[in-house]
Amino acid sequence: MNGAQSLIRTLADAGVDVCFANPGTSEMHFVAALDTVPEMHGVLGLFEGVVTGAADGYARVAGRPAAALLHLGPGLGNGLANLHNARRARTPVVVVVGDHATYHKKYDAPLESDIEAVAGSLNGWVRRCAATGDVGADAAAAVAAAMDAPGRVATLVLPADLSWGEGGRPARPVAPKPPAPVAAPAVARAADLLRGGEPVVLLIGGPACLEAGLNATSRISAATGAKALAETFPARLQRGAGLPAVERLAYRSDQATAQLAGHRHLILAGATAPVTFFAYPGEPSDLVPEGCRIHTLAEPGQDVVRALTDLADLVAPGTAPVPHPSRRPPLPSGPLTFANWADVIGALLPENAIISDESNTSGVLLPKATAGAPRHDLLTLTGGAIGQGMPVATGAAIAAPGRPVVTLQSDGSALYTISTLWTQARENLDVTTVVLNNRAYAILRLEFQRVGASSPGPEAARLLSLSPPDIDFVHLAEGFGVPATRATTAEELAAQFAEALRAPGPHLIDAVIPPVL
Amino acid sequence: MNGAQSLIRTLADAGVDVCFANPGTSEMHFVAALDTVPEMHGVLGLFEGVVTGAADGYARVAGRPAAALLHLGPGLGNGLANLHNARRARTPVVVVVGDHATYHKKYDAPLESDIEAVAGSLNGWVRRCAATGDVGADAAAAVAAAMDAPGRVATLVLPADLSWGEGGRPARPVAPKPPAPVAAPAVARAADLLRGGEPVVLLIGGPACLEAGLNATSRISAATGAKALAETFPARLQRGAGLPAVERLAYRSDQATAQLAGHRHLILAGATAPVTFFAYPGEPSDLVPEGCRIHTLAEPGQDVVRALTDLADLVAPGTAPVPHPSRRPPLPSGPLTFANWADVIGALLPENAIISDESNTSGVLLPKATAGAPRHDLLTLTGGAIGQGMPVATGAAIAAPGRPVVTLQSDGSALYTISTLWTQARENLDVTTVVLNNRAYAILRLEFQRVGASSPGPEAARLLSLSPPDIDFVHLAEGFGVPATRATTAEELAAQFAEALRAPGPHLIDAVIPPVL
Repeated sequence: MNGAQSLIRTLADAGVDVCFANPGTSEMHFVAALDTVPEMHGVLGLFEGVVTGAADGYARVAGRPAAALLHLGPGLGNGLANLHNARRARTPVVVVVGDHATYHKKYDAPLESDIEAVAGSLNGWVRRCAATGDVGADAAAAVAAAMDAPGRVATLVLPADLSWGEGGRPARPVAPKPPAPVAAPAVARAADLLRGGEPVVLLIGGPACLEAGLNATSRISAATGAKALAETFPARLQRGAGLPAVERLAYRSDQATAQLAGHRHLILAGATAPVTFFAYPGEPSDLVPEGCRIHTLAEPGQDVVRALTDLADLVAPGTAPVPHPSRRPPLPSGPLTFANWADVIGALLPENAIISDESNTSGVLLPKATAGAPRHDLLTLTGGAIGQGMPVATGAAIAAPGRPVVTLQSDGSALYTISTLWTQARENLDVTTVVLNNRAYAILRLEFQRVGASSPGPEAARLLSLSPPDIDFVHLAEGFGVPATRATTAEELAAQFAEALRAPGPHLIDAVIPPVL
Repeated sequence: MNGAQSLIRTLADAGVDVCFANPGTSEMHFVAALDTVPEMHGVLGLFEGVVTGAADGYARVAGRPAAALLHLGPGLGNGLANLHNARRARTPVVVVVGDHATYHKKYDAPLESDIEAVAGSLNGWVRRCAATGDVGADAAAAVAAAMDAPGRVATLVLPADLSWGEGGRPARPVAPKPPAPVAAPAVARAADLLRGGEPVVLLIGGPACLEAGLNATSRISAATGAKALAETFPARLQRGAGLPAVERLAYRSDQATAQLAGHRHLILAGATAPVTFFAYPGEPSDLVPEGCRIHTLAEPGQDVVRALTDLADLVAPGTAPVPHPSRRPPLPSGPLTFANWADVIGALLPENAIISDESNTSGVLLPKATAGAPRHDLLTLTGGAIGQGMPVATGAAIAAPGRPVVTLQSDGSALYTISTLWTQARENLDVTTVVLNNRAYAILRLEFQRVGASSPGPEAARLLSLSPPDIDFVHLAEGFGVPATRATTAEELAAQFAEALRAPGPHLIDAVIPPVL
């Protein structure tokens, strides 16, 4: 058994049985070894950002990591943006980066690169395999490191000669560290605050955004009057009819400030203290209102769901969670606009869907439009590195083959990882991608105003516009083997969305929307 | 004047007047400032790898750097692969990475990232601006650092508040360090070797691959019988009818070994000692034959052209360079194959063209087919990070608006930076892209065999194939606004290539070629 075989055997034994891959020469023995471990399923991405984003989306839905196979430093670089997003999502991801053979590195061959420096920028776990006989143990350690609560990117650098060398030994799975319990006094202090009569905000994040955490949060809120908010960009938020609705903290600082205004206490439950996404001239970065005290119920990595449940049992023993009613918006009509497209999604979203949301500025009305739609999972752009939506959807679809996946995708962001569509076609995934095509970096037009950079001159305006030429997403999708249509009216979007959901396999709808700015 | 304005003013004064950009919020004041410096031309790329590859291609042809504007660590990550190639090409590139405002960093906002770690992996020059009043001086230092011989990637990290802050002061250009002279005794020693009667290889690289270096090399070779070779992947190689032809050292180690066999001395002139691209089980990495001694005439960063010319004057005073005759292959006919497509290029290549070559396995016969074509510049994949061909062509076209640019592009590699086509359309660049579409990672099929990984099983084979589904590059190009056609016969390729060269603006030809492996 060679090193690569021991690596893949170990991964599969640890429950990692999907490997998203964009391999190169130094990974050829790893690729060859895939056929020796029948449980392992390799999925090709045509660009590393597809691979890493899919691994992120997979783990968000499956609850266990996938592997991502990359080729030396440049491959890791191409995958870095979506690993950044995975890091912010606290998603467990096992990255295997193939490197030159140990004895080859001193020659500074063209692809020689500082893999550790790039991987280290993710503040996760990084190890370089040092002996073929240890590759299995390294792999087991990587899986555990990725899964140690709250989850992280674990990068294993695999030199080619350790991959092809004989003497590989599979290792048993290493149990990851579970979430650390929250001590009873911390729960009791939070209970005291909630009973104290002063206005409290409860800001939830991480696993608290799943059903059990939402139920506890809803009970607390209903019994005490505390305002419940979810972090702005949760990795996975469960929502829809029958689940308690928890409003998200707004992206825009003026709106977030309004949500938090007047509160004297902020209890953090799996979330970090709110700050603005970017700095703006003359505005504070810290969104916590003057005079509001911060209290931490559970940090990321602590058992926030247990803590919230215990807290609810203290302050809301007889209170039930408040489910959101089933309520869909009516199907809109007329030309497609910023204001009506989300209602189409809300009106037609199928049962048990997964939404990968990178609609950015176009999606401001989406939460309202889908709040009473059938229960669904929402995966958001956690780290702000655009180009995540379609890859995350791809991984989610592989993790949950029976569930419909809907990607709501801004046009500009779509183009960073557009080849994801090919992987969706190859794997015949039930993903419906709606591109919100306003032919602009609309968010940058907005931010241009917000940072006070006056109005754009002609050179600046050219850098904020995606036209001319217009990008034809129907052609792009068909080029990658995904059937596609264009919608310019709400009726067209509704008909095409319904048909895409009905027909198996991937589809794309180029939803052309006039820009607001 | 704010910091951004002082930065752009300084860049323009130092001769950096093109800025390839994929900006985000933290770069909005930089974008706004573009309109205050009329000499500066902003070019939007839809992905950072387009931006950095274009900056590389621009400088290879213009001989001076462009700026590349990127957005925090994830943006730099997306641009890293082509910066790696630029590093290997020793191309001067000025990278400006916008960062959060200085006071915002401590909040660990979602896009907070370790920019210096990623930039540092390039072994170039990295500086973080520390005061608005120094941004101009930092920019001048960055340009000089990029241009100091032999050239490198210089990364300037620009916090948003230093960009928008008032008090910017433009700085005068800083003279970059010219190539260091080669001392006369080193030239004399090389002359002694060449006159010594033992077989000598002269391996040239860097600026020696341009006309003056080639002429000197040819004189030396003609007068002494030394074998002249150029480095495997030159940043820019001038060739064609009327110029001396210098064969490149082969990528494949068996072929390179044959080229070098039997030589007792290897003189390095701007090149580094030859090593294999990857390690292969049981094969040496070092390509220098047993018993062959290495002598360095000029290291990268030394004035190799002057040294070669001085050497030629010593050993070949009365010898003229040997120009390659004008000689085109006949136009082939019949189905397009691995063996005939390059002859179409050789037969029809226009005068004064620039070829960006990322044809990889499909391009093995290209050097021979184009050796006697009209004089042209060849830009190669210097660092092995695929996805360079189309961006480099884009930058080259902006650097040389009057010259036809031809991209010869493997299908798999094309997909890393496919949105480059949109920038070509927007800027109406005279670039003709021929995609060599063999529906496979053919190089990986080859490498799979070479590393001795037996024959691929079904899982492995799926990771080496780009079909199904077939990728339709005509649709992809049209989606990005570039007119495109498909060729399956040599006659079709010839007709379409001639027409694409004749018509202004970008074109793409999807040249479907049966895979060899």
